[in-house]
Amino acid sequence: MRAVDIIQKKRDGHELSSEEIAYLVKGYVNGDIPDYQMSAWAMAVYYKGMTPRETGDLTLEMAQSGDQIDLSPIKGIKVDKHSTGGVGDKTTIVLAPLVAAAGVPVAKMSGRGLGHTGGTIDKLESITGFSVELERDQFFSQVNEVGVAVIGQSGNITPADKKLYGLRDVTATVDSIPLIASSIMSKKIAAGADAIVLDVKTGSGAFMKTLDDSIALAQAMVDIGSHLGRHTVAVISDMDQPLGFGIGNALEVKEAIEILNGEGPKDLHEVCLILGSHMLVLGGKAKNEEEARVILKGHLEDGSALAKLRELVQAQHGDIGQIDHPETLPTAKRVIEVKSVQAGYISKIQAESIGIAAMLLGAGRETKDSVIDLAVGIKLLKKIGDVIEVGETLAVLHANMDNDAKIQEIENNVLQAYQISEEVVPVPPLIYAIVTRDGVQRF
Amino acid sequence: MRAVDIIQKKRDGHELSSEEIAYLVKGYVNGDIPDYQMSAWAMAVYYKGMTPRETGDLTLEMAQSGDQIDLSPIKGIKVDKHSTGGVGDKTTIVLAPLVAAAGVPVAKMSGRGLGHTGGTIDKLESITGFSVELERDQFFSQVNEVGVAVIGQSGNITPADKKLYGLRDVTATVDSIPLIASSIMSKKIAAGADAIVLDVKTGSGAFMKTLDDSIALAQAMVDIGSHLGRHTVAVISDMDQPLGFGIGNALEVKEAIEILNGEGPKDLHEVCLILGSHMLVLGGKAKNEEEARVILKGHLEDGSALAKLRELVQAQHGDIGQIDHPETLPTAKRVIEVKSVQAGYISKIQAESIGIAAMLLGAGRETKDSVIDLAVGIKLLKKIGDVIEVGETLAVLHANMDNDAKIQEIENNVLQAYQISEEVVPVPPLIYAIVTRDGVQRF
Repeated sequence: MRAVDIIQKKRDGHELSSEEIAYLVKGYVNGDIPDYQMSAWAMAVYYKGMTPRETGDLTLEMAQSGDQIDLSPIKGIKVDKHSTGGVGDKTTIVLAPLVAAAGVPVAKMSGRGLGHTGGTIDKLESITGFSVELERDQFFSQVNEVGVAVIGQSGNITPADKKLYGLRDVTATVDSIPLIASSIMSKKIAAGADAIVLDVKTGSGAFMKTLDDSIALAQAMVDIGSHLGRHTVAVISDMDQPLGFGIGNALEVKEAIEILNGEGPKDLHEVCLILGSHMLVLGGKAKNEEEARVILKGHLEDGSALAKLRELVQAQHGDIGQIDHPETLPTAKRVIEVKSVQAGYISKIQAESIGIAAMLLGAGRETKDSVIDLAVGIKLLKKIGDVIEVGETLAVLHANMDNDAKIQEIENNVLQAYQISEEVVPVPPLIYAIVTRDGVQRF
Repeated sequence: MRAVDIIQKKRDGHELSSEEIAYLVKGYVNGDIPDYQMSAWAMAVYYKGMTPRETGDLTLEMAQSGDQIDLSPIKGIKVDKHSTGGVGDKTTIVLAPLVAAAGVPVAKMSGRGLGHTGGTIDKLESITGFSVELERDQFFSQVNEVGVAVIGQSGNITPADKKLYGLRDVTATVDSIPLIASSIMSKKIAAGADAIVLDVKTGSGAFMKTLDDSIALAQAMVDIGSHLGRHTVAVISDMDQPLGFGIGNALEVKEAIEILNGEGPKDLHEVCLILGSHMLVLGGKAKNEEEARVILKGHLEDGSALAKLRELVQAQHGDIGQIDHPETLPTAKRVIEVKSVQAGYISKIQAESIGIAAMLLGAGRETKDSVIDLAVGIKLLKKIGDVIEVGETLAVLHANMDNDAKIQEIENNVLQAYQISEEVVPVPPLIYAIVTRDGVQRF
């Protein structure tokens, strides 16, 4: 077998065999196949795509390229959740305790963030003392005892994906649905999930800008799940504006606590209920989504979801006082109101621009080595459909920097991210579609 | 400027600017742009192509990437000839003295061969003492004095093309017409040609198997010539069977001498007249091809073309006795007749199989380091359209090896390369089209 023949076969639009895909991935990881052959292959895949069988094979090969977590010491069906990433997405912090309260074991390994704001792990570190590093045995026993644990990714998970992703990033081969799908799913498979709920964001602030692309990506991932025996459901949710109001690490933890208190932004509440319902159904804790929704609402109302968060924080050495008194979480020195210069209805909020503004405040990492300021960020006061008057506050910057010129610039960025219309603007849909192995249900 | 953005621009089907192409080629040669970016770009070019302007820019950048030969010390219009390569192609050995006899200065730099048989330089070394290494000044003065010189390529010609070609070879990106065209033309431009006649082979024994592909390649090269101010004409000639009868270095020199003696195979004679006519017209030595053909025929008939070969050989220290007595050129120990087991009409001769058979006898190089046996090769006695009886000789192997099993295998290869039909088979066309800057003329 020769790599050049495999590249040519894909170049000419033919389906690669399982052996050929294994040869490529194994050879790439062990250094026998050089970057320049993989990048040519990736470009051919960009144009010619892959069949569901090929994509499944690629995913499995990448999942098996490094450490694989065996979650069998944990009792029950382990349902993982993954979001394709958006601005203000703090659903994991809500969902981990919420579905754990409903009896679904949550053994969550999460990453740090690059860009916009931190990842789930960064956000949880806003809680004083919270430790994201547990030994494997501790991790398992905590999930068995408490029902939930959230730790940072450790070990050598999917080195093939890491290497290939780095290569794709510099060869204009990122935007390939089978390559994106296999990259995401390989990590979920290696992390040992029995079933997977995917939150595929769509819109201006998402990686996938159009609904069709988002659905295609969701389908590719659901197909991989079917191919590899992991029941997978994908929810296509809106990212045409940030989710919730808070963007920034401690701000997002506060908002998650609000939701667990039965309060907080409606959109975040609803997305958590939908994702959580699917997790409960896949986890065997509800017959259908309707039943699951009733269960989850119950846990939000009776305080048991918030109690589970407290248990989680205590088990991982965090300060539970901050859960009961979120105002004691890290707070920025300065609060700057961004005021509208126009009256009307909010018609658009460029989620990406808001995310970048939060990053410039210090909430996210510009480079891998940037240090995050957990206290800073942006709180939106107005969202699409809301009425605004001249001089009324659109959003609030939480800043620690003294550089007024830079603050002014960030203020302008936020102002420009908002579009205001004279006409009434309807609130956009929150959920566009659900993709399961049975097909696509659009709303 | 970033390579990844340039790759993405091409990936998305946009035209690259001259600056972007220069950035890629210069960066690739100096090592700033790694192989893995160039191979991804080459694959994008494979799918999306390049405009004539882009192809011209790429050619010029590659031509300027290393040494460039300034032929201005040579008087007159320097017309180069290039063949895309075929089995039994000895046209350069005929054309160099023939067009020189007609007053077109021939400053030929030629390569060694890989595969089939040797290159022109290898073939000329069949002549005892013939030196293919001349100092630049000697080369120029020989062309001014004798009218013709043929030397091996030396120096650092088109390193960008060498590096890119090596990469394309292992990334399934060879078969891209703009990349092939720019690769060929960059070498011609760097070698200092004022005008170029291209012999684009088409058919089973050629790199381009179909007429459409051959015409597209010819057009791309003629366009590059126009773009870079080098008048270029391409002749599309047949390579569905070997050209002439002899395949193998000394055998081919002998056949070239036959042509210069006004004898030899008709197809070779005709291809030489057509290519030579275009060279004379581009070189300003004839008003049109008809006039050029009369001039060339005159030089073949009056012995002045053969005399010019003698002058060339003498100037480069070769044994001119071998020109007058070609039987004194290297001769193989063994002569094995390959006899037909079938009667009928020759309908096909797989040129590529014949070429490989010649290589197996030792006439060509299997690897870069193989040593060529100049004496060995194959002489075809029958070509397409000829009648054959059972037991009649199709071809003769000229061999120096003692291994009868291997000889038997080569004999079988030659036998299998021939297809014999019961029906009368017409002689195939020799020239399919002429491509000039004014368009395509098909025959």
